[in-house]
Amino acid sequence: MSTSDIFIGEIIGTAVLILLGGGVVAAVVLKRSKAQNAGWLAITLGWGFAVMTAVYMTGSLSGAHLNPAVTVGIAIKDGDWSNVPVYFAGQLLGAMLGATLVWVAYYGQFHAHLTDPEIIGTRSEHAGLVDQKTEPAAGPVLGVFSTGPEIRNIAQNLATEIIGTLVLVLAVLTQGLNDSGKGLGLLGGLITAFVVVGIGLSLGGPTGYAINPARDLGPRLVHALLPLPNKGGSDWGYAWIPVVGPLIGGALAAGIYKLAFA
Amino acid sequence: MSTSDIFIGEIIGTAVLILLGGGVVAAVVLKRSKAQNAGWLAITLGWGFAVMTAVYMTGSLSGAHLNPAVTVGIAIKDGDWSNVPVYFAGQLLGAMLGATLVWVAYYGQFHAHLTDPEIIGTRSEHAGLVDQKTEPAAGPVLGVFSTGPEIRNIAQNLATEIIGTLVLVLAVLTQGLNDSGKGLGLLGGLITAFVVVGIGLSLGGPTGYAINPARDLGPRLVHALLPLPNKGGSDWGYAWIPVVGPLIGGALAAGIYKLAFA
Amino acid sequence: MSTSDIFIGEIIGTAVLILLGGGVVAAVVLKRSKAQNAGWLAITLGWGFAVMTAVYMTGSLSGAHLNPAVTVGIAIKDGDWSNVPVYFAGQLLGAMLGATLVWVAYYGQFHAHLTDPEIIGTRSEHAGLVDQKTEPAAGPVLGVFSTGPEIRNIAQNLATEIIGTLVLVLAVLTQGLNDSGKGLGLLGGLITAFVVVGIGLSLGGPTGYAINPARDLGPRLVHALLPLPNKGGSDWGYAWIPVVGPLIGGALAAGIYKLAFA
Amino acid sequence: MSTSDIFIGEIIGTAVLILLGGGVVAAVVLKRSKAQNAGWLAITLGWGFAVMTAVYMTGSLSGAHLNPAVTVGIAIKDGDWSNVPVYFAGQLLGAMLGATLVWVAYYGQFHAHLTDPEIIGTRSEHAGLVDQKTEPAAGPVLGVFSTGPEIRNIAQNLATEIIGTLVLVLAVLTQGLNDSGKGLGLLGGLITAFVVVGIGLSLGGPTGYAINPARDLGPRLVHALLPLPNKGGSDWGYAWIPVVGPLIGGALAAGIYKLAFA
Repeated sequence: MSTSDIFIGEIIGTAVLILLGGGVVAAVVLKRSKAQNAGWLAITLGWGFAVMTAVYMTGSLSGAHLNPAVTVGIAIKDGDWSNVPVYFAGQLLGAMLGATLVWVAYYGQFHAHLTDPEIIGTRSEHAGLVDQKTEPAAGPVLGVFSTGPEIRNIAQNLATEIIGTLVLVLAVLTQGLNDSGKGLGLLGGLITAFVVVGIGLSLGGPTGYAINPARDLGPRLVHALLPLPNKGGSDWGYAWIPVVGPLIGGALAAGIYKLAFA
Repeated sequence: MSTSDIFIGEIIGTAVLILLGGGVVAAVVLKRSKAQNAGWLAITLGWGFAVMTAVYMTGSLSGAHLNPAVTVGIAIKDGDWSNVPVYFAGQLLGAMLGATLVWVAYYGQFHAHLTDPEIIGTRSEHAGLVDQKTEPAAGPVLGVFSTGPEIRNIAQNLATEIIGTLVLVLAVLTQGLNDSGKGLGLLGGLITAFVVVGIGLSLGGPTGYAINPARDLGPRLVHALLPLPNKGGSDWGYAWIPVVGPLIGGALAAGIYKLAFA
Repeated sequence: MSTSDIFIGEIIGTAVLILLGGGVVAAVVLKRSKAQNAGWLAITLGWGFAVMTAVYMTGSLSGAHLNPAVTVGIAIKDGDWSNVPVYFAGQLLGAMLGATLVWVAYYGQFHAHLTDPEIIGTRSEHAGLVDQKTEPAAGPVLGVFSTGPEIRNIAQNLATEIIGTLVLVLAVLTQGLNDSGKGLGLLGGLITAFVVVGIGLSLGGPTGYAINPARDLGPRLVHALLPLPNKGGSDWGYAWIPVVGPLIGGALAAGIYKLAFA
Repeated sequence: MSTSDIFIGEIIGTAVLILLGGGVVAAVVLKRSKAQNAGWLAITLGWGFAVMTAVYMTGSLSGAHLNPAVTVGIAIKDGDWSNVPVYFAGQLLGAMLGATLVWVAYYGQFHAHLTDPEIIGTRSEHAGLVDQKTEPAAGPVLGVFSTGPEIRNIAQNLATEIIGTLVLVLAVLTQGLNDSGKGLGLLGGLITAFVVVGIGLSLGGPTGYAINPARDLGPRLVHALLPLPNKGGSDWGYAWIPVVGPLIGGALAAGIYKLAFA
């Protein structure tokens, strides 16, 4: 793979991932969306099919890492860090592009939601996505862009992100073992998607399962930059956890892989 | 593929697509259906399995485009427009046939719903599928046939349809890259179905994701022709958006494919 | 395939189909079940995975028709009716065995539901699965065994069953065309399962989608025979529709196959 | 496969199975989880993707039995019991490790739920997962770890677990028959996952479908050992049923396999 293919592939793939992933959250939480209140299962399936679509679309260009934690895990496994900066750059730019497209696609819904008198008045009750006591201004609209904990506890929040990412990256690394060294091939994108649905259903309850530093940081930057009315803060105090946790989880997965599977 | 195989394949395939796709909307929104209020996730899965069923059934006859936006994307990619009129004709006829079969299968439910005194009296409140201010007569029954925006805004509605179709057609065009030029083969229909479920979950909130001109225009014509009591207007003022938007999206996808993937 | 393999395969396969298919209805409608009120999507997915499990389990023994309408469609396509009686016998016996196993697995739930004073008193309101005006005694418990229409209308009920079965059998017959004559092979059971989920979601609203004479008749016989308290009638007036409709649909599918695909 | 690969594979695989399986129950039933009240379908899909993830991850190490009932069924089929103790040990240890990780990932949610004054006061009404009359102290928190019946009836509870496990193990044993002796290969993990979803949807209503002795006993031990406040009893009176029932079901499946399929 050429450097430019990797860069372009990761931009396109991560943009599609965040467009569809952020999109399903917008669809479910914003007012005047046909999917409002479609529920947690709809959100987790939406993120899963986002992964699937992006992986099949860009696998031939960049290998479709789409996640710095996956890039780190593969780099440790292979002992080759040469392309890591290109992957990271493409992933962050793609995530920012995808989050901007969510804003375009749901432009009217964002405006209707954020200017609804009822929501402005009771936002602290609607919040749910962050601990009102420590971060009163953020609410469901920030949740379209980035994750936040139900209970703000650095140790638990980090642990949950580490565990979730460990499962994801170990599942990615072990795919190569299931077919006499040829990998899951065409089936792999679908399996990876369902692994992500499973992690969301099973480990998403406490923090909203970032399990991907670019997925959280890129859209959070876009949230801070966009001219959304009454948008509240971007919860920068929490922002390091969904970056550091997944990187630790990806590295741990590579370690377990080398010990138990290689 | 012979011209007659293409024509027959697209008729049968698009008829099955719209029979199952319109059917799931009828199942969820009409009174006296066992599936009433089954929710948005049921609707998006129903449309996805509709795509899957139609693709596997008619792939060997016509390649199963079933969507003028896909046909345009493939024509631009291959530089071959010779069969485009046959595809378009089959797709529109098939969509009209499918919408008519939905009416047959749900005959009693349509009648029960449209003659329910409670629904007639409060239809403007039930509407939801169109902006009551500009199109007061249409309601959920039109939604069984064609799409409508939650917030009527030409720029946003067009943008959402363009973005959704771009993802769909780029996913279709890149399938050929994932298996050394052999395409996803048998797995492709399933993957395409889940791509459509993903687009529905993630980008369907604002406009109901037509992402297919034939899927919207053919059933809208049938809605205008059928002898449904109290059916209201067919919202022709909106009808051009789910035709033009998806065609632009399909063309954009082909352009991106040629720039980044070819 | 030997006659005894066909017979045993169809018994086991149809028993598993009805055990899991009737089971999911019991799980969702009966009192004191953990899955009570899990919704229509759960029911349709449950039936789909029932088909999938039974097809993979018995495909090597009998080809896993599990449905007289499929058997008729294949017999017309191939012009070979020699094994049809064995298939039919195995399917009916298997369906009766499966329905009996549902009763064993949900023994306490059946009893709790049928002896609940609240349910006995208001059963005509709870019914939903049959038209209270013409069949007052049947209710959700009959729905665990066999299907019934929301609106009792012979013409529409027959039409809906014919259309649904036509889609199913045409999907089964065309599977052989998608892989240079080799069929969908291992993927086929999964695709067939999702076709059934799609038919359930999209065409199940009016009649509960029997689309299989054995699936409806066998369990209805078991309902008539079992010593369930306050079970009400078995709605024999409706019983011919889910037998005749699917057989017509299967024959139509074979006709369309011969005209358009062969 | 070496003994150490089997041991390590079963520990890792069963730990991932229980981490994701117990996790989805925690996500749906505990307070202050984003997935609270996501419903029975979410729980069954979560367990299914847990199976899928664990099978693909560890199939190359141990064959991914992850369930003593599967191990027993395969041992009877092959007439080889030499590795059975290693499988059992790995499965029980892995299940205990996984349940402990659920506690880590949902630490704050467990504490918030168990110290909520409203829940403590009304726990007997919230219970649902056990028969309040015979086991008043257990409640939904025990349900994160192990199963319990809605109606406490030894004969029915045993029968339901036997029937569910019979379907599971027969589906596993017959996979090898569907591809000229080569097995379902890469597709197998996905099919097995959907079989488990189907069993959960269709047969999970009465007892919560343990269908795996290690899945129930290991986490029950962890529930007894963990320092959870107000956790109530571990319902040891029921604990033998989800051990004995699945072992009988697995043995029956092997018997049917030898009679009808071999």
